Amino acid sequence: MFKLYSYWRSSAAYRVRIALNLKGVAYEQQPVHLVKDGGQQRQASFRILNPQGLVPVLVLDDDAALTQSLAIIEYLDEILPEPRLLPGDALARAQVRALSLAVACDIHPLNNLRVLQYLKRVLGQDQAAVDSWYLHWLVEGLAALEEQAHPSGPFLCGAEVTMADLVLVPQIYNARRFRCDLAPYPRLLAADAACAALPAFIAALPENQPDAEAAS
Amino acid sequence: MFKLYSYWRSSAAYRVRIALNLKGVAYEQQPVHLVKDGGQQRQASFRILNPQGLVPVLVLDDDAALTQSLAIIEYLDEILPEPRLLPGDALARAQVRALSLAVACDIHPLNNLRVLQYLKRVLGQDQAAVDSWYLHWLVEGLAALEEQAHPSGPFLCGAEVTMADLVLVPQIYNARRFRCDLAPYPRLLAADAACAALPAFIAALPENQPDAEAAS
Repeated sequence: MFKLYSYWRSSAAYRVRIALNLKGVAYEQQPVHLVKDGGQQRQASFRILNPQGLVPVLVLDDDAALTQSLAIIEYLDEILPEPRLLPGDALARAQVRALSLAVACDIHPLNNLRVLQYLKRVLGQDQAAVDSWYLHWLVEGLAALEEQAHPSGPFLCGAEVTMADLVLVPQIYNARRFRCDLAPYPRLLAADAACAALPAFIAALPENQPDAEAAS
Repeated sequence: MFKLYSYWRSSAAYRVRIALNLKGVAYEQQPVHLVKDGGQQRQASFRILNPQGLVPVLVLDDDAALTQSLAIIEYLDEILPEPRLLPGDALARAQVRALSLAVACDIHPLNNLRVLQYLKRVLGQDQAAVDSWYLHWLVEGLAALEEQAHPSGPFLCGAEVTMADLVLVPQIYNARRFRCDLAPYPRLLAADAACAALPAFIAALPENQPDAEAAS
């Protein structure tokens, strides 16, 4: 059985959980606590699986360890084509990848836990400055994504769920946690709502994971 | 003819230039100066092409505008399969994508111009703090990549050039600019050297672009 090294609040792990659920793949979760023990993802036992010290890692039946959420999702889409997460047409695929990368490269890495910790611990920034940083990159990224979203939806790239939705939904989840005003992004909210009705997305919610903790 | 909106020193544009050269695609460059005029990429005329306000953008013959360097490279690899930049095997493709994303998500966005500007202008950090920030994410990222690189190379994922090399080479170029000590990464240096001998990589070098400026 596939084994997913995951953390309930990691949005990169959340993306992969949705993909596994959509594909109907049974998998076992191995929680990696990103805060406890100075971050279990930094320990040598985990770095054997991923030298980057980041979740998620998906370990296959033959023990191959896959890293990087988008690479994992593309792999799952290649070995299990239904339901497809990337359209058949090359131009449409490029659009899905571009919107996925707009979040995965240009919002998420800037607002990742390790970066917020650096701002506080090394640069001595207070919580207000860290929150402003977080919202700055989030708002800039969401505003662009709203313009690039499919005008009639309901999903981010049109009538079908694609990889771009798997990246959007965890980002919107985080945006709500950080009390970002989402009213300026009606297309993103519509896509998020359309996904929220699907069992695969519900089962992947952070609070539905075995390692979920009480909200803080 | 394809039109690439580019900036000589943008490492994301540099990746796409290498891909276009490897595929033997004739293309016209439209320089977008990331510093002049408060950043030409932020102007309304450019944001019509890419609401993100980032280079590169590749405009196709039918005027479709593609954004996000990795999405553009995958598109080029799909419409022009030779020489292929992603291997045929799904697991090997996942590995190439993972190493590409390890740079494109976990090093480059943190060291991008807009982020360094925010550190200086909004957080009031001095040049020494900005340089430390830059090297922190770079060294963390390169150390992991060195462990994930193919042990015998010569390229990052083995015997053939892949998308991962197209992402590595511009990052190494930037690392040298920021005087990062690269001695701890012999596999990365070997892959960079193997690429540096190829005409497609030479033609894509920042200093060989029409908008190149004197080194500063």
